[in-house]
Amino acid sequence: MDHAADPSHPRYRSLLMRHRLEVAAKKGMLADSAMIAHGRGEAYDYLLGETTIPSADVAAQVALKALMQAEHPVLSVNGNVVALAGDEMLKLADKIGCPLEVNIFYRTPERMDALLTDLNERKEQLGLDVDILGANPDAVIPGLKGPRAKCEAKGILQADAILVPLEDGDRCEALVAMGKTVIVIDLNPLSRSSQRGSITIVDELSRCLENMLKMETEALTSLDSYDHMQTLQDALNAIVGGMQNKFSEAKE
Amino acid sequence: MDHAADPSHPRYRSLLMRHRLEVAAKKGMLADSAMIAHGRGEAYDYLLGETTIPSADVAAQVALKALMQAEHPVLSVNGNVVALAGDEMLKLADKIGCPLEVNIFYRTPERMDALLTDLNERKEQLGLDVDILGANPDAVIPGLKGPRAKCEAKGILQADAILVPLEDGDRCEALVAMGKTVIVIDLNPLSRSSQRGSITIVDELSRCLENMLKMETEALTSLDSYDHMQTLQDALNAIVGGMQNKFSEAKE
Repeated sequence: MDHAADPSHPRYRSLLMRHRLEVAAKKGMLADSAMIAHGRGEAYDYLLGETTIPSADVAAQVALKALMQAEHPVLSVNGNVVALAGDEMLKLADKIGCPLEVNIFYRTPERMDALLTDLNERKEQLGLDVDILGANPDAVIPGLKGPRAKCEAKGILQADAILVPLEDGDRCEALVAMGKTVIVIDLNPLSRSSQRGSITIVDELSRCLENMLKMETEALTSLDSYDHMQTLQDALNAIVGGMQNKFSEAKE
Repeated sequence: MDHAADPSHPRYRSLLMRHRLEVAAKKGMLADSAMIAHGRGEAYDYLLGETTIPSADVAAQVALKALMQAEHPVLSVNGNVVALAGDEMLKLADKIGCPLEVNIFYRTPERMDALLTDLNERKEQLGLDVDILGANPDAVIPGLKGPRAKCEAKGILQADAILVPLEDGDRCEALVAMGKTVIVIDLNPLSRSSQRGSITIVDELSRCLENMLKMETEALTSLDSYDHMQTLQDALNAIVGGMQNKFSEAKE
């Protein structure tokens, strides 16, 4: 782990996340494209200054409130999400009192087994009482084809609010089309998931979840004060802010 | 390969590059961090519009001219460079009439063997007469420690101009400190290599090399007309241009 063991190192979180992915890869939890997808996220986080920007904090509050007020909230997790923040997702499910469903794009029995085993071990270690769904898909998400459409009737199918971190654009759109409140966590404000989601939090996954886990649930900002397009534009502005006149200024 | 087999597909190059990395990974050519590094590059290329911007074209002309006019030009290649554009690097070495040196950050005998074998096979297939160095490191780059400092006396050590695509920041700085003209190809205009290089081309590697291979060597822009800081700022501006008022406009 080297640097990842020292929380005071400026790249601690970044190195820790890479370490978590390496461990997950060895357990067969990840898709082939997992590392490349993570690298893309790293680039956007670097541009954001590796910090939770104010609009992302507001979006996270709005998202948590929407999940707590929903009748059937569900947290959807894929390989990278379990690898990067499996514990935090379980703790969030426990805080909200809702199930967590393993739902992966490149679905194979081996990957599903690896993810469900890992989550159940984590749940045991954390001593939490959370329903972990995904093992018995008995429903499909309309508009999607093949194994990637599979879900559970008592989980994603009936959910009125769903958290989908690091989600594929097609699936995000299909869930929105079902009329659900779809909450996206994505570092790229220009991604299709970010744009099509109902509420989008442009933040690094583990940082966002730690933030949500600390929030007082009585004092959360509600959905009326959430402006989707402005939230995405704020994230772009945060990126742009660091780039304008960066080198021209140095010349003068 | 799926989509990567169809050059008319909008994501053809991106998918082709991923395919090349997968092949190289199976051959043991890549470092553990290769896929994450590639993902970061993908993010920046997406923000640049996956195109060669005018300032990158000028920088590429200046770079080619500097290499052709150097007394001892050398092209340095690492794992990702061989994987993504091994053929193009060999063709460029042939065009310039200079050696190519395998020089990797995480140096192991196994990786060096895999890379040298792959390059020699490519050279055979292309029917080119290019010196491939790296197998017999008999010198060190001052200021670097351990295996990552190793190089060849007749290659990198004596080079007056050196092309280092996708290079680590420490190594780039060490080469600059030796007084060499260091030419960087990097998609992140904010990286330490981009900033510290003598000439930086902010472009996707294979696209940049294909562009350089097509250039008429008589009509190249020379170093006097190259403004390093402005070149980096132009790349940032290209990224920023697509972000400002993107979502605010949509509201109006």
